[in-house]
Formats: sequence, structure tokens, C-alpha cells
Amino acid sequence: MVSACTNSGRTAKACSACCILCQTERQMNENAADSSLSKQFESVRRFTDRITASLSPEDCMVQSMEDASPVRWHLAHGTWFFETFVLKQEADYTVFDKHFSYLFNSYYNAIGEQFPRPNRGTISRPGLDCIREYRRYVDRELLSRLQSPDFVARHAETITVGLNHEQQHQELILTDIKNALASNPMLPVYEDREFAPSNGTTDSWAEITDGKYDVGHDGDGFCFDNELPRHTVFLPAFRISLNLTTCGQFIEFINDGGYERPELWLSLGWNAVKERSWNAPLYWMRRDGRWMQFTLAGLTPVDPDWPICHVSYFEADAFARWAGKRLPTEFEWEVACRSLTETRAEANTGQFADKLFAGGYAIHPTLSSGGFFGSVWQWTASSYQAYPGYRPPPGAIGEYNGKFMCNQYVLRGGSVATSQSHIRDTYRNFFPADARWQFSGFRLAE
Amino acid sequence: MVSACTNSGRTAKACSACCILCQTERQMNENAADSSLSKQFESVRRFTDRITASLSPEDCMVQSMEDASPVRWHLAHGTWFFETFVLKQEADYTVFDKHFSYLFNSYYNAIGEQFPRPNRGTISRPGLDCIREYRRYVDRELLSRLQSPDFVARHAETITVGLNHEQQHQELILTDIKNALASNPMLPVYEDREFAPSNGTTDSWAEITDGKYDVGHDGDGFCFDNELPRHTVFLPAFRISLNLTTCGQFIEFINDGGYERPELWLSLGWNAVKERSWNAPLYWMRRDGRWMQFTLAGLTPVDPDWPICHVSYFEADAFARWAGKRLPTEFEWEVACRSLTETRAEANTGQFADKLFAGGYAIHPTLSSGGFFGSVWQWTASSYQAYPGYRPPPGAIGEYNGKFMCNQYVLRGGSVATSQSHIRDTYRNFFPADARWQFSGFRLAE
Amino acid sequence: MVSACTNSGRTAKACSACCILCQTERQMNENAADSSLSKQFESVRRFTDRITASLSPEDCMVQSMEDASPVRWHLAHGTWFFETFVLKQEADYTVFDKHFSYLFNSYYNAIGEQFPRPNRGTISRPGLDCIREYRRYVDRELLSRLQSPDFVARHAETITVGLNHEQQHQELILTDIKNALASNPMLPVYEDREFAPSNGTTDSWAEITDGKYDVGHDGDGFCFDNELPRHTVFLPAFRISLNLTTCGQFIEFINDGGYERPELWLSLGWNAVKERSWNAPLYWMRRDGRWMQFTLAGLTPVDPDWPICHVSYFEADAFARWAGKRLPTEFEWEVACRSLTETRAEANTGQFADKLFAGGYAIHPTLSSGGFFGSVWQWTASSYQAYPGYRPPPGAIGEYNGKFMCNQYVLRGGSVATSQSHIRDTYRNFFPADARWQFSGFRLAE
Amino acid sequence: MVSACTNSGRTAKACSACCILCQTERQMNENAADSSLSKQFESVRRFTDRITASLSPEDCMVQSMEDASPVRWHLAHGTWFFETFVLKQEADYTVFDKHFSYLFNSYYNAIGEQFPRPNRGTISRPGLDCIREYRRYVDRELLSRLQSPDFVARHAETITVGLNHEQQHQELILTDIKNALASNPMLPVYEDREFAPSNGTTDSWAEITDGKYDVGHDGDGFCFDNELPRHTVFLPAFRISLNLTTCGQFIEFINDGGYERPELWLSLGWNAVKERSWNAPLYWMRRDGRWMQFTLAGLTPVDPDWPICHVSYFEADAFARWAGKRLPTEFEWEVACRSLTETRAEANTGQFADKLFAGGYAIHPTLSSGGFFGSVWQWTASSYQAYPGYRPPPGAIGEYNGKFMCNQYVLRGGSVATSQSHIRDTYRNFFPADARWQFSGFRLAE
Repeated sequence: MVSACTNSGRTAKACSACCILCQTERQMNENAADSSLSKQFESVRRFTDRITASLSPEDCMVQSMEDASPVRWHLAHGTWFFETFVLKQEADYTVFDKHFSYLFNSYYNAIGEQFPRPNRGTISRPGLDCIREYRRYVDRELLSRLQSPDFVARHAETITVGLNHEQQHQELILTDIKNALASNPMLPVYEDREFAPSNGTTDSWAEITDGKYDVGHDGDGFCFDNELPRHTVFLPAFRISLNLTTCGQFIEFINDGGYERPELWLSLGWNAVKERSWNAPLYWMRRDGRWMQFTLAGLTPVDPDWPICHVSYFEADAFARWAGKRLPTEFEWEVACRSLTETRAEANTGQFADKLFAGGYAIHPTLSSGGFFGSVWQWTASSYQAYPGYRPPPGAIGEYNGKFMCNQYVLRGGSVATSQSHIRDTYRNFFPADARWQFSGFRLAE
Repeated sequence: MVSACTNSGRTAKACSACCILCQTERQMNENAADSSLSKQFESVRRFTDRITASLSPEDCMVQSMEDASPVRWHLAHGTWFFETFVLKQEADYTVFDKHFSYLFNSYYNAIGEQFPRPNRGTISRPGLDCIREYRRYVDRELLSRLQSPDFVARHAETITVGLNHEQQHQELILTDIKNALASNPMLPVYEDREFAPSNGTTDSWAEITDGKYDVGHDGDGFCFDNELPRHTVFLPAFRISLNLTTCGQFIEFINDGGYERPELWLSLGWNAVKERSWNAPLYWMRRDGRWMQFTLAGLTPVDPDWPICHVSYFEADAFARWAGKRLPTEFEWEVACRSLTETRAEANTGQFADKLFAGGYAIHPTLSSGGFFGSVWQWTASSYQAYPGYRPPPGAIGEYNGKFMCNQYVLRGGSVATSQSHIRDTYRNFFPADARWQFSGFRLAE
Repeated sequence: MVSACTNSGRTAKACSACCILCQTERQMNENAADSSLSKQFESVRRFTDRITASLSPEDCMVQSMEDASPVRWHLAHGTWFFETFVLKQEADYTVFDKHFSYLFNSYYNAIGEQFPRPNRGTISRPGLDCIREYRRYVDRELLSRLQSPDFVARHAETITVGLNHEQQHQELILTDIKNALASNPMLPVYEDREFAPSNGTTDSWAEITDGKYDVGHDGDGFCFDNELPRHTVFLPAFRISLNLTTCGQFIEFINDGGYERPELWLSLGWNAVKERSWNAPLYWMRRDGRWMQFTLAGLTPVDPDWPICHVSYFEADAFARWAGKRLPTEFEWEVACRSLTETRAEANTGQFADKLFAGGYAIHPTLSSGGFFGSVWQWTASSYQAYPGYRPPPGAIGEYNGKFMCNQYVLRGGSVATSQSHIRDTYRNFFPADARWQFSGFRLAE
Repeated sequence: MVSACTNSGRTAKACSACCILCQTERQMNENAADSSLSKQFESVRRFTDRITASLSPEDCMVQSMEDASPVRWHLAHGTWFFETFVLKQEADYTVFDKHFSYLFNSYYNAIGEQFPRPNRGTISRPGLDCIREYRRYVDRELLSRLQSPDFVARHAETITVGLNHEQQHQELILTDIKNALASNPMLPVYEDREFAPSNGTTDSWAEITDGKYDVGHDGDGFCFDNELPRHTVFLPAFRISLNLTTCGQFIEFINDGGYERPELWLSLGWNAVKERSWNAPLYWMRRDGRWMQFTLAGLTPVDPDWPICHVSYFEADAFARWAGKRLPTEFEWEVACRSLTETRAEANTGQFADKLFAGGYAIHPTLSSGGFFGSVWQWTASSYQAYPGYRPPPGAIGEYNGKFMCNQYVLRGGSVATSQSHIRDTYRNFFPADARWQFSGFRLAE
């Protein structure tokens, strides 16, 4: 049975691209066979195993700040999602451990109380072995049921959400373990691999004319509810950089007193600079008169051609003001991305987690030019708000995106910690203006 | 000499309605004679005297929370603005007291360091008498100079900003003293006057068709920089309520468990509800099974026909979700306001500070219907962002609005604490989503 | 009727010097006539008027930190004590204002809830005029009743406690207004008077032989419950300085890196140094390469012969360690004081509030030698604990001292802010180890 | 070479029982052969292995509150002590890892900077295996050197301190892992063993006559510096309970409103009750109308005959006040303990960690009577202060005890988490008044 579309009221079958449910259904229809979803499931879940393979039980315990979670929690929570929203709906399913419902719920009030987030790092049991066993148990239960077309019909939508959810937590595993290792004065290495090749940048800008544009998701394929409904906006003419801002450019900003001049900063940004003694991007440190940065492959010199990374919205905004430019809005980004990738076919040549792992490269952005996707999430000038006519899906899944639409800014494009299959031009990531531990950079507009 | 327009680069004379400087100049041209500005100055400054006339030196000392300031500080700061940005530019001016530059600067980094905001309530000297003498001194100095056409030419723009600034602090005086008095368990009265007449409401909605609309300030009269430039937006069709949400409606929300159901709230809003134990609007209290509210005229029963007031953005948003509606965006509000006040001539029949004082009424909203202006500031769904092409004016005045464009929401329409002459359809007020001590309510859209 | 002694169980008449009740009674007996208590009452209450005479309503509002209270609160609270514990016991008394019971209770749980201490500075009403009227009302009510021998018999004890309580708040008025004025960057003056004459110091020490000594109050005159019961202690032989440590000596400590060497400090003390960036006594500041200090008579150079003042226990302890000495215990201080003042008749030649006011001098310590009393309270090495057999009096008065016997240190001797009539060799003042806003210094022992 | 005694100035050989150095030396002399020290070393270090044998790498990561440390940190820090203060003094020693000097320093400023204590739980590397390897490395290095009489002569004192230090951290391992496991909603078990047998209590009191008594360490055997110098005190006559206060008695206190009556509490204690919502000892919870407690052997009903445990000084003090008694001072405890164990030979029949492990019993106190030692640490009324003439040893070891002599209270007697060989009648443990996670109870005096 397919739910009714919450936006249009029509049944999902009749509804055009306006809601997550019908989107998902359409995608599922196009995935001709059950085996396809199984294959996707296998693929995504095994990638989680891959990126955590080099971590010890101790590594997986660390919660280095309230915003981050222990890797072991991510491992359990991604699994909890499938158990809670899929398997527990089936009468014949036996829960793995009744405590996990409480322990590994993140923020779904509809499911019940949650263990306090800041204390996730104090829970040592179940141990990592047991959590991996939990993953295998749920995998087995789900994969065996995926043989049944009825089960697929009932749950394909939710499973697809769950896989995208797992991919998001893969990214968080990488950002959170980076933060955890960086808090250790020994600066231990996650995986010691070489950096992907860099290339130069030129001062190239694209011009987009004014006019009405449609933004938001349309057509085939999965999307999240916050990318809907597709709708019309009017944009004045604008220019947008074809390159990400680089470390070299950011060093000029620093050298010009960028962190010492309040007139360059939003008021809250200036407070952050003073209170937290910011004087460079996160993970940068000065050693022997030279900027070094901590990466997942260890401490390395800052390369001026690499894109700037681990900056907050405040820093992106201050840099833009210093440069006499501004950040693009999320709609300018989306329209430019779509216009230019159509005309220049540069889509997705960027750096993504799956590609870098496959290529044996370190998870760190080294590419500043050549497309709108990958390398670093790009801060936009847009605060994270609902699209006109947006309604969250009913039930617990409805807590996925909508309730966070306050005091966050939209980032676009994906990063070296994102899987390539996870990203698209309408994808809206979002973080508070002071967040720096994501792989976040920016491109300029004017 | 007139500055160049910072948006267009043209000199202000040639520039059309795009920046605060040219706007102000145009208004000044239309104010044929110097005496007009003098008259405005006198009028605004005397109203400040009026609204503080009933307050003791002790009352004027209180800072009841970090966001509020002592009345004495407002009195000095409004005066500091004229002294700093106008009089000190004149070679023949003798400063009243050299310490005041530091003591009464609010947040202008370009002027120098500021006395820490949370400690404003610990400064007892200069005393209130001295601050009033400071006001008279600056008034005399400025009024005598306003006899000179050259002086007017040099400073009319800044003086107009200063008068609008003073009006904003008049509103803050009323909101801050209300908060101060409410923190006293004796619940003392500001001024004991009767409430203005209420009227009923009907369930009336206006429909606005989709299309391109121009928003932002245009034409004659003063505006702030954040109302510029006027620009085009595309709006889908929408309906907007002709009434403010009332206390009676809000009590239904409370009685339906509004403050106990997380699914109705933004995530940050729910945090606020739990951490601060919100269970009703600010200043409401339960006495003998009945809702009472503290007002500037003392404790009084909650009247169901009065507009809801002293709610945060979070509460407005949660109510809207509960009601199956939503808040309008700021552009929907502006377009609806302009459309409807043209066709129905209801503009500015609402309740404002100057009118209520003149009429002998208490400063409290009692009118829920009849126009888009007055009674309570109306939360919109729009976060406070720059308009396309916005640039703040150069110098310290540039710190007026732009640097606060982060993590705040736009409110429209003015309130019982706003002077009628201060408000217009393009006016953008802004506060954080959890602010409740302003006279803030809302109207619904769908 | 006289209460029974809570220590001995005997009625107070029969009890020897073991409890506050019998002590007070004895004193009262010796005050032959009622008029004597009236005279004392008049004298103490008028001195409160004197020391607040130069303060504005605004000055009396300031609460510059949580530990301090607004002067207006002290004025009301001292009066509240007489109203609550004396007048309200009389059937024919009409309370001045029913709200005051809640507003001006400090910490007496037995009396009821208390207005939150950190918010005392946010209460503007009743105004200062009203509070002074409250004082006069209670004075009149009490003085007229003091004509009645029965009333005196019933309340003499409590009134005597109340007068000593009022004297303690006189000292707090001076310390709290000093802190309030110091928080103002204009550094305003309390009363502009000259400093009392200083004199030199010599390196003189007294030796006390080991043995059993009796400590605690005995004999005639009032004392607080925490000075009782008198009991025996054994003291090893010790030497004690006849001089207070001076500013000049303390500057040597600073110049020798005193605030930069963790080995000199208690662990909690070192935390305080780092977290609060202590690098000199409170109210000291460096101006043009010279140590200046803020006093109640304004900013003045630090005089090396004056006693060190406004240091915490941590600083006193660190100085002593640096000097290869230690602080005396409270019993060493008491035994030395009694031994030496008997043999050398130096008692009470020191600087006290009443004497300095009478002499037209500034309230600031300038005398480092010549006796054990006055100038500055002297930190001892003794934490504030109950004497063997101590029991607090019954009822609300029992909350006076006993419940604070945790995490505080004993100071002895009185200061320039203490009335001479208030002090004695058994008097135990107490403050937390990090308190600096009292007139606190120290003398060394070994 | 033996250092000079810091108290007497005499060389340690000549010095009688006044300082840690000479105490230790004497003990070492009595330990006739090197092998004796080796045997002690082996015995103590192996017990650490024993008590951590059942913990996973994840368990050893948890820091459940700032006051507690991860078990892995304790394991490394005890080893760091021997490496830093013994092995590194030897020219031929090669450090295991140069980072450990910083990572595993607790609070020794003389050794250098310390990794911030609250972040100990965020360090995942070195892993637990590596830390155990570090332990074995240091053990081997030290044991092989202990074959050399010269080495023993140089380091026996410090090694003895190190072994006592290791025993203290054994106790902390047990208290900290209990806190860690208790923070897990699954309430996991440390080791599932039966509770040791309990016995009844009678209302028995001992009377001690007044007089001069010597307190502090004397004679043979090791002691800490804070137990010295032995000195004379005068004690009034007192009575002391021969039983520990029991859970059953404490439940009476709770049922009589003990946690709701401010008059029973010290002022800071009442603050703690309100702010932290205390309504029972730590680890107690109400299940189905019955008091349960979390123990290292899991959740179990509260047995009324067991001694009360996991109460703060505040709770001990409030209970005593409620009971019309008081806590003994530390000298009363010591004198009573010595008097009674001489006359009644009850010493050390109590419950200790090593005995309970050997007997296969759970680490939880079940014995309330029969001696002054074991079961629970007993809060005394004495704040933790230096004895007359106390001087800490020179160098980093001097930071062991002295710098904590502020705002802590003395506990006596040892607990179920203490090794029997570690305790003695002069032993002074100390914790802040609000600490509850130690195995802390009390006995009454009057």
C-alpha cells in the first residue's frame, strides 16, 4: 500500500514530483527487481564497514564534543533506523535488544524518549563487537525479507530513506572521528594514504541572467522532503565563481587581519571569533612559521591550491565581505549548477568519499576547480527554511528535516566525505553558522 | 555635501530609491524648511521625556536580563547617537563628558570599545539627573545649530536616522521597563490607565494571486538600509488572515496540550519549552484557575478577544502548525498589506504608542482586527537576510542593521510600543526566535 | 521570659558563659536602664544613615556581583530583622508592607521563601525614599515600645543581636558600594577625604609558649553563638608577627613572580589565579608603570607602608608560603591577641569605621602596626567550624551562623569598615577562600 | 643518599617520626631484603590487573563525570608515576613513549603541563593494549633494576609512595567504573558475585574521657606526609558510636522529610539538594515502591542492616543533625579507634577490597558493626588542614597532598574499595563536601 501524498492530497501514484513518498515510489518502480534494492542495501552497508575498518573499539567510543557522536553510536543508530521503521513493523520480527530502542534513538520524539546526546560517549555497553553483531543481525533479517515482493512493496520507500540516512551518517563518522583524533595531542592518523592530485585555478566566473527559475527536486530519483515542492523563484542577474575559494586566498585574508577586524564580521560571528579565539580554520596550526593542518591522513602543510575547508558560515561570510563579494544564495547555486553542468558537462567530476576510498586516496579535499560538486560543502547565504507548500511526511519520519528549520544555513554540493551517489543539485545540507567540523568551504558570487 | 550612494555608485541626487542616504536626502528636500527638522526633533525627543516621566531614578537603573537595558542607558544612548554622529563632527562642539563615548556606545565597533552590555545595570553614575541634563545639553546644541542651513545640509540625513533610532529606543524603553517591573514580585504598575476598546474578530482571509511582485522600499520618505534595494520576488498564490491570532485562540492551543507535544515544535523551540519551562506566553500567570497577565497597567485578566502578545517565534510557529496553517513570509505580508490597504483603506487604524498615550490608554494591545498595522509586531516565517544587492552604508552607521543578519526572524507591522510615524509596509523589525519580551504576536497564512 | 540555654539545658539565668542567650541577658542586666538600649539603638541606626548619606538612589540600586547586595537592600534588610524578629511578635504591631517579608529576607528558611539573591539589583520598588520611610517607621515603633520594661525584658536579647547584625551590614554597605563604584569605568568617589596617617613597621614577632589555652567567649558582654562554648585547646609553641603584611612586602611577592608560580598556591587557588587572571590584589591597577588602587576616596597610589588589603585567603596563603612562613590558626591569633593586649595594652588602637568617620578620614587602611585589631580583617589558617559542643539557638535566629560552617575561612580582628564597638578578641568573621572584596589582609606566623 | 627531613631539618636518619621521607626509610630498613620490595611491587601491580580483568576496552574509556577518570587513564597514570619519579632518574632508561609524560600527568605542575582533566575520556590512543604493554614494560624495567641494592637505596622511598599511590588509584578505578556503569541505562554489571554476609547492629557507644592526646603518625611503617607531624591535641570528653549508620536508619531520615527540611542542612548542602534534586543516596532508585541500589554486582534491594554508602558530607551532617548527634572530628575518630582497637582487638576485621576479591564477594559494604575500619570511608567533621609544623616534601612529590588542603573534609577508616594493607588509624582521606561517588558513609558522635 502506498501512502497518500501529504502535499497534494492525491494518492502517491497520481502525484507528480512534490513529495518524498511519491518520489521514492517512482524510483522503486524503476528499480525493476527486488534484487536491485538488496544490492543497494548491501553496497551502502558494506561501505560503512569499510570506513570504520581501521578504527579500534576505543576510537569508536570517543565523543569529542556535544555536536559529534561516537562512531559506535553511528553504527548502531543507522541500524536502529532499519529496525525501528522497517523490521519492527513486521509481526514476525524479534528485536535484537529491547534497550536499543532508547539507547540509539537520535531525536525522534514520536518513537519515545532519547538518551541524552551529550552523554553518548559514556556508554561502553553494548561493546563494539555486539554492535557489529547487531548490524549483521539486522542485515540478515532485512535481506532475507527483501526476497519477498510484498515486503518490498511495503517498505521500499522507507528503506531508501534509510540508506540515504546511512550515507549521511557515513559522512558524520568521518567528520566526527576526525574531530576525535584531532583532540588527541598525539594527532593520530585515521588512514595513512596519499592526497589526491590537485590542479590550479583561474579567476573564472559564470553569468546568469535574471528571470524566473524553477528550483527544488523534480523528475526521477530519490530526494528528501526538504527539496520539495519544486517551485518558482525570481532571481536578479548574478555572477558566480567557477572555483572554490582556496587556502592560498584564505591565507591572504588572514594576513590582512581578517580575524582581527570586526567590520568584516556578522555580530554573532565576531562574538565567536573573540570567545573561541579563532584565528584560522579549524585543524590549522602554526608550526615553525608555517601553516599546517590536521587531516585524516595526519598533519600536513597547507597547500595554497587546495580548497579552503573547515570554515564556519561566519568565516565564509567575512571572507566574502573582505573580498568585496558575497556568498551565493542556495537558489543561485542551484540554478547556476544546473545551467552550467548542462552546458559544460562538468557534473560530478569532483572528489567524493567512495571515489577517494576506491582510488586509495586520503579523505581530504585537494580540488578547487572543475565543477559544482564534491571537495567541500559550500556555504550559501540562505538560511534553512521550508519551500512554499512544504509539509513534512506524517509520523516519525516527518521529524527528519522539518523540525531543524531554524538558525541553520544551507550548504550545497557534497564533499570528500559524501558518497557520489548521495548528492544532486537540489540537495540541501544544513548546519549552524558556527559549525566548522564538517568539510565545509564556499564559492563566491557577486 | 551629499555622500555617494553605496548601492548604485551614482551621487545621491541622481540615485533613485535604493539607499538610505538618498532616501533621507529626498525626504529632507521635501521638508522645505529647517524648522521642519527642528520640529520633528523636538517632537520625537519630547515623546521620550513623556514615556519616562513616571519612572523613578531606581526604575531607570534596572536591567532585568542581558537582552534588556536600563531606561537610563536608553536615555543616554539615544543622545550619544546625536552627539557622536552629528555634533562631534563639528569643530566648535564641546563634548558633555568624555567618558560617555565609551559608556553609552551600544555596539559600534568603528567608534571604539564598548562597556559590556550585561553590566549596564551596575553603573549608577552619571545619575539620572545628569543624564537628563546631558539630553538637554545635546538638544540645545543641536537645535541651535539647526538654524544654520549649512549644518542641516551636512547632517539632515544622519539626524533623521537618529530620530528613527530614538523611536526604536522608545519602544525598547517600554518593553524593557515592562520586563523590569515584571521581575518585581510586587508587580508594580508603570502607568495606571484603562485599556483601549477591543472589538470582535471574524474568520476573514484575503487571497493573493501568484506572480511577480516588487518588495522593499520605494518612493518618498525615510527608510532603513535593510529595506533596500527594492527588488522583484515571485510569490505562489496564498491566503492570509485579516485578523491577528487572539488570546482566546491561543488558550485553545494551550488546552489542547500545545506546550506538551513535541511534534508541534521546531527542535530548538522544543528545547526552549523544556529548559525554560514555558507553558504560556510571557507575563501570563495562573491565579485561582484563571489566566492573568501582567501589563504596563498592572495585572489583569486575559481577554480572549485581545491579540496574543509576548510569544516567541517558536510559539507562533507551533501554534500555526497546530492550527494546520503557517506563518506568512515577510514578502507575503508586505504584498498583502500593500494590496489590501490600497483596496480597503485600513492602513494605520491600529494601536500605536503615540496614539495610546494621547488617548490616555494603557500601552497594551486590545485590537485584533481591522488592518495590518499596530497592536503587535507580527512574526513572519522569514529569517532576517539581506536583500539582493544590499550593501550597508560606509562607516559606523553601516553597523546599524547589516551585521545582525543571522539567526533572527523578521517581524512586521509595528506594535502598541511603536510610534505611528515610525512604521511603514516595508519596515523590517527582527529578533531571535526565542525572544518574548517584545510586543510580539502573529497572523496566520496558508 | 528568658529562654532556656540550648547548650546546658539550664535556664539562661543559671547558665554561665556558654550561649548567646545568656550572654545577651547578662549584658542586658548590666545595661541598668532601658534607656541604655534605646541609646544603643539610636546610635547604631544613625550610623547607618551616616554612611549612606552621600549615596544617590541610583548608587543604592547597584548589585555589582552576586555576592554583593544593593545598599538599598541592606537598608531594608537590617530593618526587616527588627520588624520580623521583634515587632511582629507584638500583637499590636501593624506591618509596614506585607511584601517586605519576602523581599527583604536574606536566607532565613524558617521565615519563608526568599527573593533570589542574584536578582536583588533588579528591584526598583519600593524606592529609596520608601525604604528610608520604612526605617523611620520601624525605629519609631521600636523606640516607643522600648519605654516599656516588659517589652525590653521580652526582646532585649534579640534587639542586641539585631544591632550587631545591623553593624555587620554597615560593613557590607561599605564593601559592596566600593565594589559597585569600582565597576564603573569612571571610578567615581564615595566620599573624598584624606587618608589617615600611616606609620612605619619593624620586623617584630611575639613568641607564645606551648600549652593548654582556653578560647572562645567568656565573661561579660555580647557575643555571637559561633564564639561559644569557650573550650580548651592545646597549642604548640609559635611565633606571630606584630605587624600586618604591607603593600610593599606584597609587591616584592608580585615582582618575584608570585602570581606565576603554581608551587606557591593551593590547587584551588591556582585555578582561581588562572581563570580570573589575578595578578594583583583586587582594586589594584597598573597606570604608567606604577601600582594604583581604587579606594572609597578615589584612585590613589599604592603606599608601601599600608597594610595589604583586598586579598583572598589564597593570596594570603601563597604569600606566606613564598615568605617561608604560614598563616596563624584562629586560636593562635586569639591567644596571642589576648596575651599581648594584656601585657602591652595595645588593644583597639587600630583603624575602625566609626573612628575614621568621626575623624574625617577616608575609609581605607593605612596602619600596619600597633595592635591586633582594626585596619584589615586577618585571614587565619582555620576553616570555619563549630566549637566542641556548639549548638545553634532554636528558631530562625539559629540560621545566623551555624549553617555557613562549610568551605569558609575564619578572619579575625575587624577592619576599617567595622565599628570599634563591634569587635572583640573572640570574634569570628568568615568568608570563602576566594573572596577579595572585603577589607581583608593578614599577618604571618611561624 | 637520603634527603634531609623537611620538618626537622635533621637528616632523615636522625629524624623521628615526623616526615614521609624518614618514615619510608625506616620501613625500608625493616624490609630486610630487596626482594621484599619486589614482592610488594608485584603484589600491588598484579592486584590492579585483577580488578580490571573483567573490563572491556570500551569500559576503560568512559569518563562519566569530570571528577572521575577513565580506567585506562588510571592504568597509565599509576605507571607514569614509576616511570617519571623513578626510572627517568636513571641515565640508562629509555622512555616508553615521549607523549605519555604530558598525557598521563595528573596534576604535577613541577613535571609540566597537563592534558585537561575533563577531556581524558576523549583520548582513544594509545589503546588499552598499548597501555597494558606500557605497564609490562615499566614493570620489567623496574623489577630488573630492583635486583641492584644501589637502585633500591636510591628509590625505595619513592617506590613505596608509588605503590601506595597505585593502591589509591585501585580504589578510584572501582569508584569510577561504578559511576561509569551506573550512567548506562542498561545498568550493566561489573562482576556478578554474591554479597558478603551482613550482621546486626546494636546501639553501642564508647566513651572517651577528656585530655591531651597525641595524633598523627608515629612509629614504624609508611605514612603520607599529611599524617605528620604527630602532635598533641586537647579533646573534651565525647561518645562515639561503635556502629556505622545503616541504610535502615537513613531510610527513617528520608521518610521523616530529611531531604525536604532546610533546617537540617548546611547552607551549601541545601543548595546541592535543590540544584541536583537529591532525594536519596547516590545510586539509589525507587522501583515499585521499594528502594533499590545499583552496585558493582548489579541492581539489588537496599538492605536495612548494611551501612549507608555513597552519601556526601552534607548528607552525613544533615542526618547527624536530624538524629540529635554530630559527626566526630578526625581526632576523635583517631583517638577512639586507637583506644578501642587496643582494648577490644577489633582492628581490621572489616571489609576491604583485597579480602572481598579473595573471598569471591561483591565489592559492596554489608557490615555495619565490629570495628572502626573498612566497609565505608567515614566522613568526619574536620576540614582537611595541615597539622602544626607540616611541610610538604620538596619537588614534585610535594604536590601530593598539601596543595589540596582547602574546601575538603577528612574521611577515615577505608572502605570495601581499599586494600587492607593500605589503611591505618592515622590515614587521612579527603573529598569535597558534595562528593558522593566514593564508598562514603559515617558513624555518629555526641
